[in-house]
Amino acid sequence: MPDDWFQENHTPYAGLTLAVGERLHDQHSAYQHIEVLQTLEYGRMLVLDGFVMLTERDEFVYHEMLVHPALLTHPEPRRVLIIGGGDGGSVREVLRHETVERVELVEIDEEVVKTCRRYFPALTRGLDDARVSLHCKDGFDYLDDHPDAYDVILVDSIDPVGEAAKLFTTSFYRKVKAALKNGGSAVFQTESPFYNPEVVAQVSRRLRMLFANVAPYLAHIPTYPSGLWSFTFASQTVDPLTSELHAKPALLAELKYLNPGVCKAAFALPNYIRAHLAK
Amino acid sequence: MPDDWFQENHTPYAGLTLAVGERLHDQHSAYQHIEVLQTLEYGRMLVLDGFVMLTERDEFVYHEMLVHPALLTHPEPRRVLIIGGGDGGSVREVLRHETVERVELVEIDEEVVKTCRRYFPALTRGLDDARVSLHCKDGFDYLDDHPDAYDVILVDSIDPVGEAAKLFTTSFYRKVKAALKNGGSAVFQTESPFYNPEVVAQVSRRLRMLFANVAPYLAHIPTYPSGLWSFTFASQTVDPLTSELHAKPALLAELKYLNPGVCKAAFALPNYIRAHLAK
Repeated sequence: MPDDWFQENHTPYAGLTLAVGERLHDQHSAYQHIEVLQTLEYGRMLVLDGFVMLTERDEFVYHEMLVHPALLTHPEPRRVLIIGGGDGGSVREVLRHETVERVELVEIDEEVVKTCRRYFPALTRGLDDARVSLHCKDGFDYLDDHPDAYDVILVDSIDPVGEAAKLFTTSFYRKVKAALKNGGSAVFQTESPFYNPEVVAQVSRRLRMLFANVAPYLAHIPTYPSGLWSFTFASQTVDPLTSELHAKPALLAELKYLNPGVCKAAFALPNYIRAHLAK
Repeated sequence: MPDDWFQENHTPYAGLTLAVGERLHDQHSAYQHIEVLQTLEYGRMLVLDGFVMLTERDEFVYHEMLVHPALLTHPEPRRVLIIGGGDGGSVREVLRHETVERVELVEIDEEVVKTCRRYFPALTRGLDDARVSLHCKDGFDYLDDHPDAYDVILVDSIDPVGEAAKLFTTSFYRKVKAALKNGGSAVFQTESPFYNPEVVAQVSRRLRMLFANVAPYLAHIPTYPSGLWSFTFASQTVDPLTSELHAKPALLAELKYLNPGVCKAAFALPNYIRAHLAK
């Protein structure tokens, strides 16, 4: 029995425990507490302010499902903006799309990028691609300087507390809309629909005031609270439920979670989630 | 911070922790260790041999998804057999179908039924329905005495260890097939496809030798290992992926998880699970 266990309480009364082989990194940056732990079940794990951000074993689900539904339903995504996501996982997935010419990664905390370059090379390898530019800035302000610029915007944010709370406001969603080109789409990570269905519902309500097509979708991520995670898709022109997928077979063959069936099925919401969305 | 925490290790290195308000019941039956705990997040919880069987808060997912895909794709399910499931949750769901005339529940451990009657009245209320008969027997033997008898057989078993291991054998699956009427279907609970994809794959291989249509499907159950659970559908005549759902609107309106979209989407398997099934 290992004696070092990491515990994340997903609510005051329910949590996840993971046996730890080694605590590799522990740092307080200007923005947050950054830890890297070697877990015995999930490989290396990035923890910010005590919350699991990713593990080597299940990060593929989160990153594939944040990135590909928007890129696969866009006929020709060329310029992509990622807000947050300093671990590089979303960049890696975006770069699988041949049409992409330019990816801008706007991560407020440079120390997250540095830490991930050191401990998660499989995630950060895309950051050195010539198509990628990294901006250690506040995504909120960055959007103001780039109107009408992006085919896809991906909001790979942390939970809506503290500094990140503003990434869940109508004012932020307006900036995202203004930064999208005609025909563009955005995807936002929107928390656990089991523990926080009111977050999913509130994001949808706010986005519906601005976008013609808004659709939450789901993926199963074992180390995230409840194991069920939501993303919300928003676009003026693209309806992800009826859109054709513009997927090269070579791209699909690389993926570990998403396939065309899963990409459609992810939008089927259980009744208990639909009930919250209808409120 | 509560001081009593239940922990279930899903693997030697990863587990779930739940704060406990009260330990209500603790008994060793002839078959297993039966506990009932009042958790602070998930309500009352039934634990057998240290494994979470169900909680009041999320049992609806498991029971709806074990029962309805088979009953909704059968044109007229009249006689149903449930093996295991002494908590009564599956019976409750089967009874929502008006066509059902007779439900036989075969639970080996009478003490599970007694305990659930006492602590989980919302689950066991169906057991007193005139259509239901309870048999505290071994399901393996029971099948031998009932050839060609059932429209639907549901195997609501515990994990494939100890006594329950035989419920995952080809010899058991042959008995299930022989006990089904023409046009009948069976569903088996088949563990976590994240932690135990080899179980899902082995069950499918064994069932494919006997049934023309075999299809694993998924549901999200927060308190089960990894939060993702699998069931496997088997039938000579019904293909659940293309079948029409014979659902009354009044029945669908009662459900908290399943709707027609979810019922189809559940069969869309992520690539990492498909890879195991293809082995």
